[in-house]
Amino acid sequence: MSPLQARDPNESEDLQDASQGGEGLPVLTEIDHIGIAVRNLPDALDTYREAFGAVVEHREELVDEGVEVALLKVAESYVQLLTPTHDDSELSAFLAERGEGLHHVGFRVDDVAAVLEVLAAQGHELVDEEPRPGSRGTLVAFIHPRSVHGTLICLVEE
Amino acid sequence: MSPLQARDPNESEDLQDASQGGEGLPVLTEIDHIGIAVRNLPDALDTYREAFGAVVEHREELVDEGVEVALLKVAESYVQLLTPTHDDSELSAFLAERGEGLHHVGFRVDDVAAVLEVLAAQGHELVDEEPRPGSRGTLVAFIHPRSVHGTLICLVEE
Repeated sequence: MSPLQARDPNESEDLQDASQGGEGLPVLTEIDHIGIAVRNLPDALDTYREAFGAVVEHREELVDEGVEVALLKVAESYVQLLTPTHDDSELSAFLAERGEGLHHVGFRVDDVAAVLEVLAAQGHELVDEEPRPGSRGTLVAFIHPRSVHGTLICLVEE
Repeated sequence: MSPLQARDPNESEDLQDASQGGEGLPVLTEIDHIGIAVRNLPDALDTYREAFGAVVEHREELVDEGVEVALLKVAESYVQLLTPTHDDSELSAFLAERGEGLHHVGFRVDDVAAVLEVLAAQGHELVDEEPRPGSRGTLVAFIHPRSVHGTLICLVEE
């Protein structure tokens, strides 16, 4: 039973949103995915299949971001292999500067909009002020790495 | 029921290790952790606590690696914040070159030694030829990023 459920309903006027923890803080419910930038998606898929038996569960082009993604399921999480679809993609710049490898981490939350509100109020630097469509029908929003010790974090609502 | 359990026991002579998939390939059972390099562990913990309500489940110094780690639990996985304990640590060189941020990903497997054998046979470049102690009493082995499209991968056996 969560602390919320244990509360007296007569004291419910400041009940918090279910996406927030005991002190009104957001709750991460799952590592949704690890985003890994690769230059050649078929090659990378071959590697992950041969080395780890990984099977593609979903594949999608995200036109606005100029990336193609392939999702490999690992328990309740995904390895998201990302490749740019054109040279002007931000991911092309990332690959040119940093090379292939870890690009971002996605944390699943119940309500991305509610978490963005908490983070904005705390003064965090957001890449996305509002949730927007992500892969496999999710809503996502990115937090700027400058705001969270260098890690590009993606909030994901299923 | 797994395909292994469904097999006729009379045909069991080439039964595969439980850590391997249907084609003798390893199986990733969980994203064990995401390793994130930070310069100042208390500062980073403050950020993750304030932004995400994250609570430290485990803290440990890994003397051989020259790092201190703090584990924040997210469902069955962990965010592993890592900081160097001295200037000669490999993590110090990483921070100097790449700055704070994503450092490696840990995939949970049933049997690290068995997976290393498969990867070695495939010609993968291993950082650790044998499993060695990791944090929270696990056995771990790292695969070289050159071998897997730029990502430093840690295999983890609980």
